[in-house]
Amino acid sequence: MESPIAVQQREWVLAGIRHEIFMRVFPALRHGLVGPVSIARMSVSIVRRLLSKGDAGKAVLNEPVERIDQQLAEAVTGIRALQAWEPGAKGLATPAEVLRQGMSLMTASLALRDIKLDYVPSDIQEVEEVHHQPFLYAWLALLCHVEDSVQAPVSLRIEQKQPKSVSVEIIHSLYDVNQDKTRPTAHVRLIDQAALELMAAASGLQLTSGEGWMRLSWI
Amino acid sequence: MESPIAVQQREWVLAGIRHEIFMRVFPALRHGLVGPVSIARMSVSIVRRLLSKGDAGKAVLNEPVERIDQQLAEAVTGIRALQAWEPGAKGLATPAEVLRQGMSLMTASLALRDIKLDYVPSDIQEVEEVHHQPFLYAWLALLCHVEDSVQAPVSLRIEQKQPKSVSVEIIHSLYDVNQDKTRPTAHVRLIDQAALELMAAASGLQLTSGEGWMRLSWI
Repeated sequence: MESPIAVQQREWVLAGIRHEIFMRVFPALRHGLVGPVSIARMSVSIVRRLLSKGDAGKAVLNEPVERIDQQLAEAVTGIRALQAWEPGAKGLATPAEVLRQGMSLMTASLALRDIKLDYVPSDIQEVEEVHHQPFLYAWLALLCHVEDSVQAPVSLRIEQKQPKSVSVEIIHSLYDVNQDKTRPTAHVRLIDQAALELMAAASGLQLTSGEGWMRLSWI
Repeated sequence: MESPIAVQQREWVLAGIRHEIFMRVFPALRHGLVGPVSIARMSVSIVRRLLSKGDAGKAVLNEPVERIDQQLAEAVTGIRALQAWEPGAKGLATPAEVLRQGMSLMTASLALRDIKLDYVPSDIQEVEEVHHQPFLYAWLALLCHVEDSVQAPVSLRIEQKQPKSVSVEIIHSLYDVNQDKTRPTAHVRLIDQAALELMAAASGLQLTSGEGWMRLSWI
Protein backbone atom coordinates (compact mmCIF):
# COMPACT_ATOMS: atom_id res chain seq x y z
CA MET A 1 0.00 0.00 0.00
CA GLU A 2 1.20 3.48 -0.82
CA SER A 3 1.87 5.93 1.98
CA PRO A 4 -0.48 8.94 2.23
CA ILE A 5 2.44 11.21 1.32
CA ALA A 6 3.18 9.23 -1.84
CA VAL A 7 -0.52 9.37 -2.80
CA GLN A 8 -0.60 13.12 -2.18
CA GLN A 9 2.62 13.60 -4.15
CA ARG A 10 1.13 11.66 -7.07
CA GLU A 11 -1.99 13.83 -6.98
CA TRP A 12 0.15 16.96 -7.28
CA VAL A 13 2.16 15.45 -10.12
CA LEU A 14 -1.07 14.55 -11.92
CA ALA A 15 -2.32 18.11 -11.46
CA GLY A 16 1.03 19.26 -12.86
CA ILE A 17 0.58 17.10 -15.95
CA ARG A 18 -2.92 18.52 -16.40
CA HIS A 19 -1.48 22.03 -16.09
CA GLU A 20 1.11 21.33 -18.77
CA ILE A 21 -1.53 19.90 -21.10
CA PHE A 22 -4.05 22.66 -20.41
CA MET A 23 -1.50 25.40 -21.00
CA ARG A 24 -0.50 23.84 -24.34
CA VAL A 25 -4.08 24.10 -25.63
CA PHE A 26 -4.83 27.42 -23.91
CA PRO A 27 -3.74 29.53 -26.92
CA ALA A 28 -6.13 27.53 -29.13
CA LEU A 29 -8.92 28.02 -26.60
CA ARG A 30 -8.26 31.78 -26.47
CA HIS A 31 -8.16 31.93 -30.23
CA GLY A 32 -11.54 30.21 -30.39
CA LEU A 33 -13.00 32.85 -28.07
CA VAL A 34 -11.71 35.78 -30.11
CA GLY A 35 -13.17 34.42 -33.37
CA PRO A 36 -16.89 35.22 -32.94
CA VAL A 37 -16.14 38.56 -31.22
CA SER A 38 -13.96 39.62 -34.15
CA ILE A 39 -16.62 38.70 -36.69
CA ALA A 40 -19.19 40.64 -34.65
CA ARG A 41 -16.90 43.67 -34.68
CA MET A 42 -16.68 43.57 -38.45
CA SER A 43 -20.47 43.70 -38.61
CA VAL A 44 -20.46 46.58 -36.11
CA SER A 45 -18.14 48.55 -38.36
CA ILE A 46 -20.45 47.89 -41.32
CA VAL A 47 -23.37 49.23 -39.26
CA ARG A 48 -21.34 52.30 -38.28
CA ARG A 49 -20.42 53.00 -41.87
CA LEU A 50 -24.05 52.69 -43.00
CA LEU A 51 -25.13 55.02 -40.20
CA SER A 52 -22.47 57.61 -41.01
CA LYS A 53 -23.57 57.59 -44.66
CA GLY A 54 -27.09 58.31 -43.41
CA ASP A 55 -28.09 54.94 -44.90
CA ALA A 56 -29.94 53.81 -41.83
CA GLY A 57 -32.90 51.97 -43.28
CA LYS A 58 -34.22 48.93 -41.52
CA ALA A 59 -33.70 46.85 -44.66
CA VAL A 60 -29.94 47.39 -44.82
CA LEU A 61 -29.30 47.33 -41.07
CA ASN A 62 -31.25 44.20 -40.20
CA GLU A 63 -28.78 41.74 -41.62
CA PRO A 64 -25.56 42.97 -39.97
CA VAL A 65 -27.39 43.47 -36.66
CA GLU A 66 -28.69 39.88 -36.77
CA ARG A 67 -25.18 38.69 -37.51
CA ILE A 68 -23.80 40.58 -34.50
CA ASP A 69 -26.46 38.96 -32.35
CA GLN A 70 -25.64 35.45 -33.55
CA GLN A 71 -21.92 35.92 -33.13
CA LEU A 72 -22.31 37.24 -29.60
CA ALA A 73 -24.54 34.30 -28.68
CA GLU A 74 -21.79 32.06 -30.00
CA ALA A 75 -19.16 33.94 -27.99
CA VAL A 76 -21.15 33.40 -24.79
CA THR A 77 -21.56 29.69 -25.60
CA GLY A 78 -17.81 29.44 -26.16
CA ILE A 79 -16.98 31.12 -22.86
CA ARG A 80 -19.48 28.89 -21.02
CA ALA A 81 -17.95 25.79 -22.61
CA LEU A 82 -14.70 26.55 -20.75
CA GLN A 83 -16.48 25.18 -17.68
CA ALA A 84 -15.72 21.71 -19.00
CA TRP A 85 -12.10 22.28 -17.88
CA GLU A 86 -12.93 23.04 -14.29
CA PRO A 87 -12.21 20.42 -11.65
CA GLY A 88 -15.41 18.62 -10.85
CA ALA A 89 -16.89 19.08 -14.34
CA LYS A 90 -19.02 16.00 -14.88
CA GLY A 91 -20.04 16.41 -18.52
CA LEU A 92 -20.43 13.48 -20.88
CA ALA A 93 -19.72 13.26 -24.59
CA THR A 94 -19.32 10.60 -27.25
CA PRO A 95 -15.74 9.39 -27.82
CA ALA A 96 -15.77 10.69 -31.40
CA GLU A 97 -16.69 14.21 -30.21
CA VAL A 98 -13.86 14.26 -27.69
CA LEU A 99 -11.37 12.86 -30.19
CA ARG A 100 -12.28 15.59 -32.66
CA GLN A 101 -12.09 18.31 -30.01
CA GLY A 102 -8.62 17.16 -28.93
CA MET A 103 -7.42 17.09 -32.52
CA SER A 104 -8.75 20.55 -33.27
CA LEU A 105 -7.04 21.96 -30.15
CA MET A 106 -3.70 20.39 -31.09
CA THR A 107 -3.66 20.74 -34.90
CA ALA A 108 -1.81 24.06 -34.98
CA SER A 109 0.91 23.23 -32.48
CA LEU A 110 1.47 19.78 -34.00
CA ALA A 111 1.73 21.36 -37.47
CA LEU A 112 4.61 23.52 -36.18
CA ARG A 113 6.47 20.28 -35.52
CA ASP A 114 5.49 18.80 -38.92
CA ILE A 115 3.01 16.39 -37.41
CA LYS A 116 -0.16 15.96 -39.43
CA LEU A 117 -3.39 14.47 -38.14
CA ASP A 118 -5.24 12.03 -40.34
CA TYR A 119 -8.56 11.03 -38.81
CA VAL A 120 -10.13 8.00 -40.43
CA PRO A 121 -13.91 8.10 -39.97
CA SER A 122 -15.03 4.86 -38.43
CA ASP A 123 -17.95 2.57 -39.25
CA ILE A 124 -18.27 1.94 -35.55
CA GLN A 125 -21.11 4.04 -34.24
CA GLU A 126 -20.21 4.65 -30.63
CA VAL A 127 -23.26 6.13 -28.94
CA GLU A 128 -22.23 5.35 -25.38
CA GLU A 129 -20.90 8.50 -23.78
CA VAL A 130 -17.69 8.89 -21.80
CA HIS A 131 -16.65 11.39 -19.13
CA HIS A 132 -15.64 14.38 -21.20
CA GLN A 133 -12.85 15.92 -19.12
CA PRO A 134 -10.80 12.85 -18.09
CA PHE A 135 -11.13 11.37 -21.58
CA LEU A 136 -10.02 14.63 -23.18
CA TYR A 137 -7.00 14.96 -20.86
CA ALA A 138 -5.87 11.41 -21.65
CA TRP A 139 -6.31 11.97 -25.38
CA LEU A 140 -4.45 15.29 -25.27
CA ALA A 141 -1.70 13.63 -23.20
CA LEU A 142 -1.22 11.15 -26.02
CA LEU A 143 -1.04 13.91 -28.65
CA CYS A 144 1.35 15.95 -26.47
CA HIS A 145 3.50 12.86 -26.02
CA VAL A 146 3.75 12.53 -29.80
CA GLU A 147 4.55 16.26 -30.03
CA ASP A 148 7.42 15.78 -27.58
CA SER A 149 8.83 12.49 -28.81
CA VAL A 150 8.67 12.56 -32.59
CA GLN A 151 11.66 14.21 -34.26
CA ALA A 152 10.84 13.84 -37.96
CA PRO A 153 7.79 14.78 -40.03
CA VAL A 154 5.06 12.21 -39.54
CA SER A 155 1.38 11.83 -39.97
CA LEU A 156 -0.79 10.27 -37.32
CA ARG A 157 -3.41 7.87 -38.60
CA ILE A 158 -6.16 8.01 -36.00
CA GLU A 159 -8.84 5.37 -36.20
CA GLN A 160 -11.45 3.67 -34.07
CA LYS A 161 -10.77 0.18 -35.39
CA GLN A 162 -12.58 -1.60 -32.59
CA PRO A 163 -15.32 -0.43 -30.26
CA LYS A 164 -14.15 1.39 -27.13
CA SER A 165 -10.66 2.09 -28.36
CA VAL A 166 -8.78 4.49 -30.58
CA SER A 167 -5.54 3.59 -32.29
CA VAL A 168 -2.84 5.98 -33.41
CA GLU A 169 -0.35 4.88 -36.02
CA ILE A 170 2.73 7.01 -36.55
CA ILE A 171 3.55 7.08 -40.26
CA HIS A 172 6.92 8.53 -41.24
CA SER A 173 7.26 10.48 -44.43
CA LEU A 174 9.48 8.75 -46.97
CA TYR A 175 11.90 11.63 -46.88
CA ASP A 176 12.04 14.80 -44.94
CA VAL A 177 11.58 17.73 -47.30
CA ASN A 178 11.94 20.17 -44.43
CA GLN A 179 14.91 18.58 -42.78
CA ASP A 180 16.81 21.84 -42.48
CA LYS A 181 13.80 23.66 -41.08
CA THR A 182 14.17 24.77 -37.49
CA ARG A 183 11.44 23.30 -35.36
CA PRO A 184 10.22 25.14 -32.29
CA THR A 185 12.17 24.22 -29.17
CA ALA A 186 10.64 21.54 -27.04
CA HIS A 187 8.55 22.40 -24.03
CA VAL A 188 10.23 22.66 -20.64
CA ARG A 189 8.13 19.89 -19.13
CA LEU A 190 7.82 16.96 -21.50
CA ILE A 191 4.89 14.58 -21.56
CA ASP A 192 7.06 11.46 -21.55
CA GLN A 193 5.83 7.88 -21.56
CA ALA A 194 5.57 7.88 -17.76
CA ALA A 195 3.47 11.08 -17.69
CA LEU A 196 1.22 9.72 -20.44
CA GLU A 197 0.71 6.43 -18.58
CA LEU A 198 -0.07 8.24 -15.33
CA MET A 199 -2.62 10.49 -17.07
CA ALA A 200 -4.29 7.61 -18.91
CA ALA A 201 -4.57 5.55 -15.73
CA ALA A 202 -5.93 8.50 -13.74
CA SER A 203 -8.55 9.00 -16.46
CA GLY A 204 -9.58 5.35 -16.31
CA LEU A 205 -8.22 4.56 -19.77
CA GLN A 206 -5.85 1.81 -20.75
CA LEU A 207 -2.79 2.57 -22.82
CA THR A 208 -1.09 -0.05 -24.96
CA SER A 209 1.72 0.72 -27.35
CA GLY A 210 4.38 -0.75 -29.55
CA GLU A 211 6.85 0.35 -32.22
CA GLY A 212 5.08 3.14 -34.12
CA TRP A 213 1.61 2.76 -32.63
CA MET A 214 -0.39 3.51 -29.50
CA ARG A 215 -3.88 2.62 -28.43
CA LEU A 216 -6.19 4.04 -25.78
CA SER A 217 -9.03 1.79 -24.66
CA TRP A 218 -11.92 2.37 -22.34
CA ILE A 219 -14.58 0.18 -20.77
CA MET B 1 22.71 18.45 -4.53
CA GLU B 2 19.32 17.23 -5.56
CA SER B 3 19.06 14.36 -8.01
CA PRO B 4 17.66 15.16 -11.47
CA ILE B 5 14.61 13.03 -10.65
CA ALA B 6 13.91 14.99 -7.46
CA VAL B 7 14.24 18.26 -9.39
CA GLN B 8 11.89 16.98 -12.10
CA GLN B 9 9.43 15.74 -9.49
CA ARG B 10 9.45 19.16 -7.81
CA GLU B 11 8.82 20.86 -11.16
CA TRP B 12 5.73 18.69 -11.67
CA VAL B 13 4.50 19.39 -8.14
CA LEU B 14 4.96 23.12 -8.73
CA ALA B 15 2.99 22.86 -11.97
CA GLY B 16 0.34 21.01 -9.97
CA ILE B 17 0.14 23.83 -7.44
CA ARG B 18 -0.18 26.33 -10.30
CA HIS B 19 -2.96 24.20 -11.77
CA GLU B 20 -4.85 24.18 -8.46
CA ILE B 21 -4.49 27.96 -8.11
CA PHE B 22 -5.37 28.68 -11.74
CA MET B 23 -8.46 26.49 -11.63
CA ARG B 24 -9.68 28.26 -8.48
CA VAL B 25 -9.65 31.63 -10.23
CA PHE B 26 -10.79 30.27 -13.60
CA PRO B 27 -14.52 30.85 -12.86
CA ALA B 28 -13.74 34.50 -12.04
CA LEU B 29 -11.73 34.82 -15.26
CA ARG B 30 -14.60 33.33 -17.28
CA HIS B 31 -17.06 35.59 -15.56
CA GLY B 32 -14.93 38.60 -16.49
CA LEU B 33 -15.02 37.56 -20.14
CA VAL B 34 -18.80 37.17 -20.24
CA GLY B 35 -19.38 40.65 -18.76
CA PRO B 36 -18.65 42.91 -21.75
CA VAL B 37 -20.24 40.46 -24.20
CA SER B 38 -23.46 40.45 -22.15
CA ILE B 39 -23.58 44.24 -22.03
CA ALA B 40 -23.01 44.35 -25.79
CA ARG B 41 -25.90 41.94 -26.29
CA MET B 42 -28.22 44.21 -24.33
CA SER B 43 -27.33 47.06 -26.67
CA VAL B 44 -27.91 44.76 -29.66
CA SER B 45 -31.41 44.00 -28.43
CA ILE B 46 -32.08 47.73 -28.05
CA VAL B 47 -30.96 48.24 -31.65
CA ARG B 48 -33.18 45.38 -32.82
CA ARG B 49 -36.17 46.80 -31.00
CA LEU B 50 -35.61 50.25 -32.52
CA LEU B 51 -35.28 48.69 -35.98
CA SER B 52 -38.45 46.60 -35.59
CA LYS B 53 -40.35 49.74 -34.55
CA GLY B 54 -39.11 51.35 -37.74
CA ASP B 55 -37.30 53.85 -35.54
CA ALA B 56 -34.05 53.57 -37.40
CA GLY B 57 -32.75 57.09 -37.37
CA LYS B 58 -29.06 57.71 -37.10
CA ALA B 59 -29.59 59.82 -33.99
CA VAL B 60 -31.15 57.04 -31.93
CA LEU B 61 -28.99 54.21 -33.26
CA ASN B 62 -25.60 55.85 -32.88
CA GLU B 63 -25.37 55.55 -29.15
CA PRO B 64 -26.18 51.83 -28.70
CA VAL B 65 -23.97 50.96 -31.69
CA GLU B 66 -21.04 52.87 -30.18
CA ARG B 67 -21.63 51.06 -26.91
CA ILE B 68 -21.55 47.67 -28.68
CA ASP B 69 -18.28 48.66 -30.29
CA GLN B 70 -16.68 49.69 -27.00
CA GLN B 71 -17.83 46.55 -25.20
CA LEU B 72 -16.51 44.29 -27.93
CA ALA B 73 -13.16 46.07 -27.88
CA GLU B 74 -13.11 45.43 -24.14
CA ALA B 75 -14.01 41.77 -24.67
CA VAL B 76 -11.07 41.33 -27.04
CA THR B 77 -8.74 43.06 -24.57
CA GLY B 78 -9.97 40.71 -21.84
CA ILE B 79 -9.40 37.60 -23.93
CA ARG B 80 -5.92 38.82 -24.94
CA ALA B 81 -5.06 39.47 -21.28
CA LEU B 82 -5.39 35.73 -20.63
CA GLN B 83 -2.00 35.42 -22.31
CA ALA B 84 -0.48 36.57 -19.02
CA TRP B 85 -1.23 33.07 -17.66
CA GLU B 86 0.66 31.21 -20.33
CA PRO B 87 4.00 29.64 -19.46
CA GLY B 88 6.71 31.94 -20.67
CA ALA B 89 4.65 35.11 -20.26
CA LYS B 90 7.18 37.78 -19.39
CA GLY B 91 4.93 40.72 -18.56
CA LEU B 92 5.74 43.24 -15.85
CA ALA B 93 3.40 45.13 -13.53
CA THR B 94 3.60 47.17 -10.36
CA PRO B 95 3.13 45.20 -7.13
CA ALA B 96 -0.03 47.19 -6.28
CA GLU B 97 -1.61 46.23 -9.63
CA VAL B 98 -0.90 42.54 -9.10
CA LEU B 99 -2.13 42.65 -5.50
CA ARG B 100 -5.40 44.22 -6.63
CA GLN B 101 -5.80 41.72 -9.48
CA GLY B 102 -5.30 38.78 -7.12
CA MET B 103 -7.80 40.19 -4.64
CA SER B 104 -10.42 40.78 -7.30
CA LEU B 105 -10.01 37.20 -8.60
CA MET B 106 -10.40 35.73 -5.10
CA THR B 107 -13.00 38.03 -3.52
CA ALA B 108 -16.03 35.90 -4.46
CA SER B 109 -14.65 32.53 -3.40
CA LEU B 110 -13.23 33.95 -0.16
CA ALA B 111 -16.59 35.56 0.61
CA LEU B 112 -18.21 32.11 0.42
CA ARG B 113 -15.97 31.11 3.31
CA ASP B 114 -16.69 34.35 5.24
CA ILE B 115 -13.28 35.81 4.52
CA LYS B 116 -13.28 39.52 3.76
CA LEU B 117 -10.48 41.44 2.12
CA ASP B 118 -9.51 44.80 3.55
CA TYR B 119 -6.88 46.51 1.41
CA VAL B 120 -5.21 49.44 3.11
CA PRO B 121 -3.91 51.88 0.50
CA SER B 122 -0.26 52.53 1.12
CA ASP B 123 1.75 55.74 1.14
CA ILE B 124 4.56 53.79 -0.39
CA GLN B 125 4.63 54.50 -4.09
CA GLU B 126 6.15 51.43 -5.61
CA VAL B 127 6.99 52.23 -9.19
CA GLU B 128 9.44 49.41 -9.74
CA GLU B 129 7.73 46.64 -11.63
CA VAL B 130 7.76 42.94 -10.82
CA HIS B 131 7.27 39.87 -13.00
CA HIS B 132 3.52 39.71 -13.30
CA GLN B 133 2.87 35.98 -13.52
CA PRO B 134 5.17 34.57 -10.79
CA PHE B 135 4.21 37.39 -8.43
CA LEU B 136 0.51 36.79 -9.05
CA TYR B 137 0.84 33.03 -8.49
CA ALA B 138 2.64 33.58 -5.18
CA TRP B 139 0.06 36.12 -4.05
CA LEU B 140 -2.85 33.87 -5.06
CA ALA B 141 -1.14 30.95 -3.28
CA LEU B 142 -1.19 33.01 -0.09
CA LEU B 143 -4.89 33.85 -0.51
CA CYS B 144 -5.72 30.21 -1.34
CA HIS B 145 -3.80 29.13 1.73
CA VAL B 146 -5.95 31.40 3.88
CA GLU B 147 -9.04 30.04 2.11
CA ASP B 148 -8.01 26.50 3.05
CA SER B 149 -6.75 27.05 6.56
CA VAL B 150 -9.10 29.55 8.19
CA GLN B 151 -12.19 28.00 9.77
CA ALA B 152 -13.95 31.05 11.23
CA PRO B 153 -15.05 34.37 9.71
CA VAL B 154 -12.08 36.69 9.42
CA SER B 155 -11.02 39.76 7.59
CA LEU B 156 -7.63 40.06 5.99
CA ARG B 157 -5.90 43.38 6.49
CA ILE B 158 -3.63 43.73 3.50
CA GLU B 159 -1.04 46.46 3.60
CA GLN B 160 2.27 47.43 2.06
CA LYS B 161 3.82 48.66 5.29
CA GLN B 162 7.35 48.64 3.99
CA PRO B 163 8.71 48.88 0.47
CA LYS B 164 8.98 45.58 -1.40
CA SER B 165 6.71 43.66 0.88
CA VAL B 166 3.06 43.08 1.58
CA SER B 167 1.73 42.01 4.93
CA VAL B 168 -1.48 40.15 5.64
CA GLU B 169 -2.98 40.26 9.08
CA ILE B 170 -5.77 37.79 9.89
CA ILE B 171 -8.34 39.52 12.07
CA HIS B 172 -10.96 37.31 13.69
CA SER B 173 -14.45 38.62 14.14
CA LEU B 174 -15.43 39.05 17.76
CA TYR B 175 -18.18 36.51 17.40
CA ASP B 176 -19.33 34.37 14.56
CA VAL B 177 -22.81 35.49 13.49
CA ASN B 178 -22.93 32.80 10.85
CA GLN B 179 -21.60 29.98 12.92
CA ASP B 180 -24.35 27.61 11.87
CA LYS B 181 -23.96 28.47 8.23
CA THR B 182 -22.66 25.63 6.11
CA ARG B 183 -19.49 26.63 4.37
CA PRO B 184 -18.57 25.12 1.02
CA THR B 185 -16.54 21.95 1.35
CA ALA B 186 -12.82 22.36 1.14
CA HIS B 187 -11.00 21.79 -2.12
CA VAL B 188 -9.57 18.35 -2.81
CA ARG B 189 -6.01 19.61 -3.07
CA LEU B 190 -5.24 22.06 -0.30
CA ILE B 191 -2.69 24.84 -0.56
CA ASP B 192 -1.01 24.02 2.75
CA GLN B 193 1.95 25.81 4.25
CA ALA B 194 4.38 23.59 2.31
CA ALA B 195 2.66 24.31 -1.02
CA LEU B 196 2.62 28.04 -0.29
CA GLU B 197 6.31 28.05 0.61
CA LEU B 198 7.21 26.11 -2.52
CA MET B 199 5.22 28.52 -4.71
CA ALA B 200 6.67 31.64 -3.07
CA ALA B 201 10.23 30.32 -3.42
CA ALA B 202 9.67 29.32 -7.07
CA SER B 203 8.37 32.84 -7.73
CA GLY B 204 11.43 34.41 -6.13
CA LEU B 205 9.50 35.81 -3.17
CA GLN B 206 10.22 35.35 0.48
CA LEU B 207 7.53 34.24 2.87
CA THR B 208 7.65 35.00 6.57
CA SER B 209 4.82 34.25 8.93
CA GLY B 210 3.78 34.08 12.55
CA GLU B 211 0.63 33.66 14.59
CA GLY B 212 -2.08 35.48 12.62
CA TRP B 213 0.12 37.17 10.06
CA MET B 214 2.06 36.48 6.87
CA ARG B 215 4.36 38.58 4.77
CA LEU B 216 5.61 38.25 1.22
CA SER B 217 8.75 40.18 0.35
CA TRP B 218 10.60 40.68 -2.88
CA ILE B 219 13.91 42.18 -3.88
